[in-house]
Amino acid sequence: MIHATDFYQGILKQNVSMLGRAITLVESDLPEKQVLARELLHLIMTSKELCLRAPSIRLGISGIPGGGKSTFIESFGMALIEEGKSVAVLAIDPSSNLSGGSILGDKTRMRKLSAHDKAFVRPSPTQGSLGGVAPRTREAIILCEAFGFDYILVETVGVGQSEVIVSEMVDLFLLLVIPAAGDELQGIKRGILEMTDILIINKADGILKDRAAAIKLEYIRALSILARKKHWEESTFTCSALYSMGMKEIISYIEVLKQKLTASSDDFHRKRRDQLLVWLWKASEEKILCDLKESKEMKKILHQTKERVLSGEELPYVAAEKVVNAFYEVMSSSAYQTLRSKND
Amino acid sequence: MIHATDFYQGILKQNVSMLGRAITLVESDLPEKQVLARELLHLIMTSKELCLRAPSIRLGISGIPGGGKSTFIESFGMALIEEGKSVAVLAIDPSSNLSGGSILGDKTRMRKLSAHDKAFVRPSPTQGSLGGVAPRTREAIILCEAFGFDYILVETVGVGQSEVIVSEMVDLFLLLVIPAAGDELQGIKRGILEMTDILIINKADGILKDRAAAIKLEYIRALSILARKKHWEESTFTCSALYSMGMKEIISYIEVLKQKLTASSDDFHRKRRDQLLVWLWKASEEKILCDLKESKEMKKILHQTKERVLSGEELPYVAAEKVVNAFYEVMSSSAYQTLRSKND
Repeated sequence: MIHATDFYQGILKQNVSMLGRAITLVESDLPEKQVLARELLHLIMTSKELCLRAPSIRLGISGIPGGGKSTFIESFGMALIEEGKSVAVLAIDPSSNLSGGSILGDKTRMRKLSAHDKAFVRPSPTQGSLGGVAPRTREAIILCEAFGFDYILVETVGVGQSEVIVSEMVDLFLLLVIPAAGDELQGIKRGILEMTDILIINKADGILKDRAAAIKLEYIRALSILARKKHWEESTFTCSALYSMGMKEIISYIEVLKQKLTASSDDFHRKRRDQLLVWLWKASEEKILCDLKESKEMKKILHQTKERVLSGEELPYVAAEKVVNAFYEVMSSSAYQTLRSKND
Repeated sequence: MIHATDFYQGILKQNVSMLGRAITLVESDLPEKQVLARELLHLIMTSKELCLRAPSIRLGISGIPGGGKSTFIESFGMALIEEGKSVAVLAIDPSSNLSGGSILGDKTRMRKLSAHDKAFVRPSPTQGSLGGVAPRTREAIILCEAFGFDYILVETVGVGQSEVIVSEMVDLFLLLVIPAAGDELQGIKRGILEMTDILIINKADGILKDRAAAIKLEYIRALSILARKKHWEESTFTCSALYSMGMKEIISYIEVLKQKLTASSDDFHRKRRDQLLVWLWKASEEKILCDLKESKEMKKILHQTKERVLSGEELPYVAAEKVVNAFYEVMSSSAYQTLRSKND
């Protein structure tokens, strides 16, 4: 039988197949795997050896549909490797989406990067969750960092909720757009821009090349109004992922930011500590909603309430209050019983 | 003082300003307004008079960023009016987003429709929620239906979570795309397609006109694989919202669907009844998360837990379990006290 320490040692020795298996482990929903996963994460997160290592730079990468995210990550990742960095990519599995040409075309995503031995590309199933982030991305990030990657890129799909979730897991957040004005910015919400650290205008090539510079100024102007605190002149870039142009400038800028961040070590660690608390919060929310969904007693209560709602006797949200109070009752008594049985 | 019956009578008499005020009322978070809002909704939902009326058709409208949603709703809404229908549009307020040219341009959204007396256009603030649907959209739909609109269009922003929420409020769900292949479909998730009833390829004009027909076939082929149950040949359309072309075909098709739906009155009402239960469920979830966020006792418990998480003593999700059990304890005793004080 494999133990948590085997995974731990394997990851520390940079055994790639062990890393892959460890990610599969943390993604598993089986109770016995979850116990093992927790032991492994505990070993890593309390490891003194790992604590002394330079941390990875965790980058969230998002962008509007059609913005060329896969091509960008391929091109950006290869540029990082050329500069001597190792790269892990936690990408959303396109098989669950109508994307990446898996349906309407036949391109392979990040072909060069996947084949390179300084890179680790891990597509994670979204497990039908429409949020667009694989549910165990936080854990996968921790495993990749323990392995010692210089950069960890976390790709998100869609512009919305998933960006918020990812931004709470990474050190810097990159937003990819295309050189087109106004209309294409629909759907990018102010909240997304506020969490963006670096704005990248991709597809600055061919007929769009000249236009991109003008569009860049337009973006800088708009962003300076919307998210004032950021220095958009410095942190807005044009590039062509397709022709690998403009990558070095982006990397240099990130390296400067990284120096600043880790120099004032306080800022860096404060952000990561805050993220631990977000994790605590999210895990609490998830646990509660999961209890609500799976408790047998709740199913009975909901069944009775249904009738009252369907007959028009009770408005849905009036009924909801009663359901919720009943839920607290049920759960507090079962929580009490669980505690008691553990102490026995 | 204004009473719930005043709102109720005003809406039944098709007083537009009363409808507007009633929506403002249900959107309010003030406790006294909420009480009034509940009374009003109860009056409407249990009204025998309203029960005898033909129901509105509730349409959800979504699409990829840059797909021309506002232009489509303007053009589609005007076409509906030409056919003698009245239209309510519940649109997301663009002021909170980087959209609609409010930042990078200066177009007014749905100008003609807003000015027409057979139409009611109501932008609803998203209240900073990144979900992209105004939190009280369900209630606003009920008010618009009581007013007697033939069509209620609910616009959503972004492709993601918000579509799921809206699809649970409407009778039919329209998805707007543009005549471009593969790449642009990234970000449209399979789940979104499964809930789509009508696919509309907009911008089938100018240089894209000829291409649109070929793209339509491509979409039909892809969709038939992904969401087999639907008759995509019948329910996929090309149109040009800009030049108001193709609107009549879409309307005729919706009218046919409406006939079918309301003829087998069971199907229609079953779907709406199911939606009441979804509402019950969502309201329960919201209530719980709100309790978690606002309970004073929880703040204390979280504060103590924080320390253990930050010191590395406890992993976030191990700590989360303890937090959740404490939450149930606290809430069940306060729920008990509330119940007791009500009964005293």
